[in-house]
Amino acid sequence: MNLLEVDTLQQAVEKIKSSLSEIGFETEEVSLKEAYGRVLAGDIVSRENIPDFRRSTVDGYGVVAADTQGASESVPSILEITGQVLMGRPAEKEVHPGECMYVPTGGMVPEGADAVVMIEHTEIFGETEGEEHPETGELMVYSSLPAGLNVVQTGEDIARGDMVIPAGKKLTARDLAAMAALGYPTVSVYRRPVVAIISTGDEVLPVEETPGMGQVRDINSYGIMGLAMEEGFEIGSMELLKDEEKLLEEAVAKAMELADIVLVSGGSSKGKKDATAKVIDSLADPGVLTHGIALKPGKPTIIGYDRASATLLMGLPGHPAAAMMVFRLALVRAMREVTGQREDIPVKAVAETNLAAAPGRATAVPVRLVDDGTEVRAVPVLGKSGAITTLTAADGFIFTELNDEGIKAGQPVDVHLL
Amino acid sequence: MNLLEVDTLQQAVEKIKSSLSEIGFETEEVSLKEAYGRVLAGDIVSRENIPDFRRSTVDGYGVVAADTQGASESVPSILEITGQVLMGRPAEKEVHPGECMYVPTGGMVPEGADAVVMIEHTEIFGETEGEEHPETGELMVYSSLPAGLNVVQTGEDIARGDMVIPAGKKLTARDLAAMAALGYPTVSVYRRPVVAIISTGDEVLPVEETPGMGQVRDINSYGIMGLAMEEGFEIGSMELLKDEEKLLEEAVAKAMELADIVLVSGGSSKGKKDATAKVIDSLADPGVLTHGIALKPGKPTIIGYDRASATLLMGLPGHPAAAMMVFRLALVRAMREVTGQREDIPVKAVAETNLAAAPGRATAVPVRLVDDGTEVRAVPVLGKSGAITTLTAADGFIFTELNDEGIKAGQPVDVHLL
Repeated sequence: MNLLEVDTLQQAVEKIKSSLSEIGFETEEVSLKEAYGRVLAGDIVSRENIPDFRRSTVDGYGVVAADTQGASESVPSILEITGQVLMGRPAEKEVHPGECMYVPTGGMVPEGADAVVMIEHTEIFGETEGEEHPETGELMVYSSLPAGLNVVQTGEDIARGDMVIPAGKKLTARDLAAMAALGYPTVSVYRRPVVAIISTGDEVLPVEETPGMGQVRDINSYGIMGLAMEEGFEIGSMELLKDEEKLLEEAVAKAMELADIVLVSGGSSKGKKDATAKVIDSLADPGVLTHGIALKPGKPTIIGYDRASATLLMGLPGHPAAAMMVFRLALVRAMREVTGQREDIPVKAVAETNLAAAPGRATAVPVRLVDDGTEVRAVPVLGKSGAITTLTAADGFIFTELNDEGIKAGQPVDVHLL
Repeated sequence: MNLLEVDTLQQAVEKIKSSLSEIGFETEEVSLKEAYGRVLAGDIVSRENIPDFRRSTVDGYGVVAADTQGASESVPSILEITGQVLMGRPAEKEVHPGECMYVPTGGMVPEGADAVVMIEHTEIFGETEGEEHPETGELMVYSSLPAGLNVVQTGEDIARGDMVIPAGKKLTARDLAAMAALGYPTVSVYRRPVVAIISTGDEVLPVEETPGMGQVRDINSYGIMGLAMEEGFEIGSMELLKDEEKLLEEAVAKAMELADIVLVSGGSSKGKKDATAKVIDSLADPGVLTHGIALKPGKPTIIGYDRASATLLMGLPGHPAAAMMVFRLALVRAMREVTGQREDIPVKAVAETNLAAAPGRATAVPVRLVDDGTEVRAVPVLGKSGAITTLTAADGFIFTELNDEGIKAGQPVDVHLL
């Protein structure tokens, strides 16, 4: 393959992005119970103040803070109890100087009160002593409160109009909690892309079978399926084919009808790559957009697009680790950029060894993370690109751009978790 | 609450662990297509050598390395082509000194050959020049090969008997790929724990409704549901109740029949906590095991167990952030320890500010991560414990043990991602 024919990773990502944009992923409205892990299609903006009343953060008494100035264990302030606030109910009275009302945690702080003294710092005395939350009596307050203590102000948490969750966010448990708080029983999310996975190879057997000499089981289908699931894609179909152009053509044509993204992984050999490119060119228009990526591993990658069926087509390398790396670095990256998702936070680590950059190619080096307590070391997982252990032993990878000069032992590195 | 009545977090985790162990999570056999995200119940040990034949990593010619010693662009070695190896087929011939055979990527390296020269470093000449993989003719080899070059040895990747994936691993895409390689069409995983989620509170409304004064929507159910989904638990039921002991008792009794784990989240107020404890004690035997945890946030947590129905029961704090933190720090930690799962790798960061430890309590401080290129700073997310923004703005949390002395600004910290 001529280096002039290959795209940089960034060029490849741009081509995938433009294909994905043309495909277009409509939004759908799902209930909050079904929204976990889905990608948010529009900003969640608060339509309300949260809280929309002043709320107590403790079980205690709403007071005028100034009334407690100088109060201590030995010299309590004495206030008149005028009632109590019930949970889930508006406060029925105002608190005037010299007065107080019981307020439960989460309860509304009455008008007039500007702080809540914790029940542990008070004592009831007089005739209502011993009652739980008496409506009358006298309260000794043993601490001096600044204004605002134990009170959440109206809109303090979230004000009306605040953007709370940005479009593109892959929804987490915490996002669901926030949407529940803001009154979103349903939420608009992107439709999940449907992926068809096609593995090819005369030497590739279904996982149930025992390989003879020169044969291997179908690893790529499962690795790619898992990555697609992880990313929230829907698996439209999985198929394993022998190396016959006719079979590949039929399978790709069928897949183009049902899927948004058709992934063909075959041998990395030139002949197989050419067959995939030929099939894509024969079925798709405009057809093949990229004949290879300046990426190690992952060079023998084909990217194509069909406008009529709105399908992205990719020929992935035959080596499982390479196929999975291309899925992650090209397809996932493009999909996240198109939907506005933030990339995962990389782990900061220290390179264990020198890592040479591949001349003229971006490089992804699989690493294990070893946390020795003070620092996390990134230890390259050695193994030829076909190796299974490269897959299982790595926690993540270090990525070097096209023209990086490689990495020196001891240098800080970003590890992208796998 | 008396500090003497509360457990340390570690004690609480141990009690949950022993309850979970009593419940027992049977294993089930699922197909590889359904195994993503499930927790592996037994070690995956290789029953085979991978590869079980010597495999070429390139398209090229199998040669006797010694034959190429000293070969270069200007002084090629010349070898006799004696045939070719077909993909997925055993090599039919042996390579003797002076001979070579074409081998495709992934193909079997013939007996006798101990290296494969890349096709790019060769040229065919003589009468078969121009044919793709001729069975006869002469090959010029333009590079000098060390023995073993471009050859994966038998068992080099994985040897028979190697432990490849440990029991307890939550299966990733890469694990599925490895199991496919090793011939595991099905895999034994732990049954998913069934969780019932009960929210209580007179002031708590379904998410569809608009809160009046002193009311809030049901945040906890969705936050806990999301965390449970994230952890691979099955959601058995979700229910929102008014604060009535009778209703709670009925709901808990019903939940105990269908679920392994019943989670009740109500107000953090003493009265509500007591009601939950009372219901657990009335329905379950041995009943309440823990009346509180020395954890901030998360103190008002109740742990109980019922032997007859094999159900773990927990009363979670009413504050969403606290309830979710307890779920994460106590229940998830216990479940992971029981099933042998490894904890997630924390992100190394630098504390942005001093963080005081809570006296006598383990503390979880929610933080945002800010990557300024050279280091990642952990910036505490301020907010009272009921705040929604605490949920949405945090990337993770810093955990300090019971007797830690707090954290100083600039100190390295482990951030556990949320």
